[in-house]
Amino acid sequence: MSDLVLYNYFRSSTSYRARIALHWKELSFQYRPVHLLNNGGEQHSAEYRKLNPTGEVPTLIHNGFTIGQSMAIIQYLDEVFPEKPLFPKNPGLKAQVLQFCENINCTHPYQNLKTIQFLEKNFKITPEQKNQWIQNWLDQCFISLESSLKNQSGKFCFGDNLTAADAFLIPQLFSAQRFQVPIDNYPLIQKIQKNCLEQEAIKKAHPTNQIDSE
Amino acid sequence: MSDLVLYNYFRSSTSYRARIALHWKELSFQYRPVHLLNNGGEQHSAEYRKLNPTGEVPTLIHNGFTIGQSMAIIQYLDEVFPEKPLFPKNPGLKAQVLQFCENINCTHPYQNLKTIQFLEKNFKITPEQKNQWIQNWLDQCFISLESSLKNQSGKFCFGDNLTAADAFLIPQLFSAQRFQVPIDNYPLIQKIQKNCLEQEAIKKAHPTNQIDSE
Repeated sequence: MSDLVLYNYFRSSTSYRARIALHWKELSFQYRPVHLLNNGGEQHSAEYRKLNPTGEVPTLIHNGFTIGQSMAIIQYLDEVFPEKPLFPKNPGLKAQVLQFCENINCTHPYQNLKTIQFLEKNFKITPEQKNQWIQNWLDQCFISLESSLKNQSGKFCFGDNLTAADAFLIPQLFSAQRFQVPIDNYPLIQKIQKNCLEQEAIKKAHPTNQIDSE
Repeated sequence: MSDLVLYNYFRSSTSYRARIALHWKELSFQYRPVHLLNNGGEQHSAEYRKLNPTGEVPTLIHNGFTIGQSMAIIQYLDEVFPEKPLFPKNPGLKAQVLQFCENINCTHPYQNLKTIQFLEKNFKITPEQKNQWIQNWLDQCFISLESSLKNQSGKFCFGDNLTAADAFLIPQLFSAQRFQVPIDNYPLIQKIQKNCLEQEAIKKAHPTNQIDSE
């Protein structure tokens, strides 16, 4: 049995990022589903909060370390399993990839389940306002990503090698589809999406192909 | 003249993080103020967007690289200027620090100027609702940070050496003060804040000590 354990949820885009990294590196792992809606949200259970005090997925356990936050997980995996790297070795180039990932990472809170639940409960937003909210932040993110892709993209976000940037972009596009945010205005993003979705690792990581998929 | 250039804003907590890292490493840098409110927000200017397509501060320029996102900037500085490290060398320990930083980083969008402006303009939130919104997310963040500090803190967030975790925590506490979110329930956070504020580097980086301070 693999000594890598991933607590995650099939539909969560942050979980999807971690799964892409694991499959890209051809690492087998124990899949532990955490259902974000059932039982009032299993991520809020006392048992899960012991692993991850933020009450969020994903959480990776490996070699005595318990690591939450997809960004920390992916960097950890890249350092411990350096084959098929997800970051360039050059610190300046690595920073460009990190910047791209962080742009998406810092957009995620807007679309997070807990955020939408707060807005609905406390600010009584309508379904239209919910769509307006999500569309606004996803669009702002895609506009700046598309702009940066003009400088450095190839087959993937950074040239012709898959990087962590792609592992962040693809789940964000899955979210866009879920929330019906069109990506017609972003031709480079669309091209990279097509190339990424042909990768075996990304197919394996897709939300529809997990043991807890509904 | 230093070959490190930091575009930033005295009051921005993400700028404050980058300044702590620079001062901690005793690196001199050219300070380029970007006023987030004047002239409709200088971060939105076409000139600044060329440097940083997200239209956000901070942006670091060094050695031909233009790097946005404080997380990417701090990791870059730590790799290129390894003296007085901000991350542990061990990948598992480093991931713990990254996780802590990302918890704060992913809370920042809630308190970001553009977010508050959106909520006020589109959802017509009242000043009380604005406070409720900010307090909720800052509290959730502090609760989980305090919980994780029980396991690993010493004088600072991770033992007795200052790390990137402290460079993220201190600006978040500055935000808490600005938004009048009390931290009375977080004794470890308070202790670490006191220890950090005694550090010369953190004094130099404080929003009240910048050339654009008001």
